Amino acid sequence: MKSPSETALRFFVQGRIWIDSEKGPFLGYGRIELLKKIAEYGSITKAAKSMNMAYRQAWHLIESMNAKAENPLVLTSTGGKGGGGATLTEEGIKMIHAFEMLESEFASFLKMKSEGLNI
Amino acid sequence: MKSPSETALRFFVQGRIWIDSEKGPFLGYGRIELLKKIAEYGSITKAAKSMNMAYRQAWHLIESMNAKAENPLVLTSTGGKGGGGATLTEEGIKMIHAFEMLESEFASFLKMKSEGLNI
Repeated sequence: MKSPSETALRFFVQGRIWIDSEKGPFLGYGRIELLKKIAEYGSITKAAKSMNMAYRQAWHLIESMNAKAENPLVLTSTGGKGGGGATLTEEGIKMIHAFEMLESEFASFLKMKSEGLNI
Repeated sequence: MKSPSETALRFFVQGRIWIDSEKGPFLGYGRIELLKKIAEYGSITKAAKSMNMAYRQAWHLIESMNAKAENPLVLTSTGGKGGGGATLTEEGIKMIHAFEMLESEFASFLKMKSEGLNI
């Protein structure tokens, strides 16, 4: 038992969310970051490198997202010295926005529930 | 691009939540299960065994919860052949209920957001 003079600790509800399709993982924090980096660099190689991710892993994640979405999120072009480029489609941009909206609503949920714990 | 005849996949928002105190992790799915098992068995040893958890780990989790809560969640008594017993306090019961309420509200949040994704 603690003495009444001690200040009660504050508690925080924390969490994480992601989106699954019926065929498995679709979008999460890491995949969204990868999409943003592809938009920034126009290249899977550079995007992966900026995240300390293996190219093979980045490619696997993109394939997974493209296969599950109604339309591909990323388009790739092969060839050229740089090894081809990658661009985000409208669907890809839409998904980033949808996920960020969800994240923001989840943050509000966590804040509200945290306040409820500390009253 | 997929043919329009293919059925669009359904998406689901998934997630997990937990409660941290200012001093670190306080409650999560595993800790709540441990509290419930202690209430069921009246023994840390038996509770830990039923979860395939080492006694040492169970003890560590209980110490962590007790140290962070305003009042202990679990009381232990030493001695006797069975190695002493463990009981859940009112605070412990209150915490299980609070966490289950939170889980249920989170489940509603996930359901609502999943419905929003598939309209």
